[in-house]
Amino acid sequence: MRQFVVVGHDTPTTPDFALDDLAGGAGRLDVLCRCVSAALFLSHDLREDVRVHLVLGDAITVVFDGATVRRLNPDERSTAALVRGALEDREEAIGHEPVETSPGVSLYRLGFEATLERLAEDGTVVQLHENGDPVVDRSVPEDPVFVLSDHHEFTDDEATLLEDVADERVRLGPRALHANHAITVAHNYLDTEGFERY
Amino acid sequence: MRQFVVVGHDTPTTPDFALDDLAGGAGRLDVLCRCVSAALFLSHDLREDVRVHLVLGDAITVVFDGATVRRLNPDERSTAALVRGALEDREEAIGHEPVETSPGVSLYRLGFEATLERLAEDGTVVQLHENGDPVVDRSVPEDPVFVLSDHHEFTDDEATLLEDVADERVRLGPRALHANHAITVAHNYLDTEGFERY
Repeated sequence: MRQFVVVGHDTPTTPDFALDDLAGGAGRLDVLCRCVSAALFLSHDLREDVRVHLVLGDAITVVFDGATVRRLNPDERSTAALVRGALEDREEAIGHEPVETSPGVSLYRLGFEATLERLAEDGTVVQLHENGDPVVDRSVPEDPVFVLSDHHEFTDDEATLLEDVADERVRLGPRALHANHAITVAHNYLDTEGFERY
Repeated sequence: MRQFVVVGHDTPTTPDFALDDLAGGAGRLDVLCRCVSAALFLSHDLREDVRVHLVLGDAITVVFDGATVRRLNPDERSTAALVRGALEDREEAIGHEPVETSPGVSLYRLGFEATLERLAEDGTVVQLHENGDPVVDRSVPEDPVFVLSDHHEFTDDEATLLEDVADERVRLGPRALHANHAITVAHNYLDTEGFERY
């Protein structure tokens, strides 16, 4: 299982945003939608062994599960519509009990810290960061949980938390990438078992 | 210089399409917009040594030049608006003479074959294809011109043309990727000089 956690710093936590303005009024939800697409899509196929966790604000995480997701398309707008649909049902989730808001899309009332704690039990938490160790110098992790930020840096609190929780901190190349591009490179690294099996 | 040619098979050649329906009525223009973003964006920066050529229908190619492009954002909708703006001025381009329709965005009245011929003079034409040779087995090409298709396979005519023109045919991993994800992996391969310098 590969998992990706993406922190959205300006993204909405209620469904009152316009699908026509994802990069503006919706607080760059477009970035997170591209991350969902990068994490889950293959050509004419889905990666069933992948989950993506979008952290929205302080207390909401929307999860896309590649094994069960339906009605997901690669474009930003339709993915944002699934996020909006999840937020419409946010009152139905309580504590650690999620609500499945459409097939394979669930909403948890958990923020970044609680989401990380929940996932740290599942595998190796890897922070993708331009100052990390080159990924080629590390062994390919078992059940990686990659943690990324949107177009903003992690806040000081998030960075401190990650220092405690992350098992590894790696970089994927010499140039800093957008979060969705980093997800694509991470998949390629894992698909090829460290860029070796093509 | 790195260049990417992406063939859109269903995409519009006139500007009468809705930005709200890129994945439907606009013939999956969303795919091509994601390719532009994958080709040109770094985190908080643009790749100035890159050009992307979107082939639309039989006789139009819209080119984004990383060195001079302005008003480009990573989201699909705003990129599609630049394509639409280019198509509004399509009558101003004649033969091999392009029209610059906004800073760094140009429209040529050239189809796939003429675009490939034009670019083959500039560098090494590389077809990205799931049945190609593993990229790690090839030397890193000088001035690569990567050629990709949208969500459709190349047509028989396009494939025949590529057999003539392409210098190399490579695959980027064991799994078939969306065109925009392939662009991201190709960049990472080149950024790291064959996955070696991190």
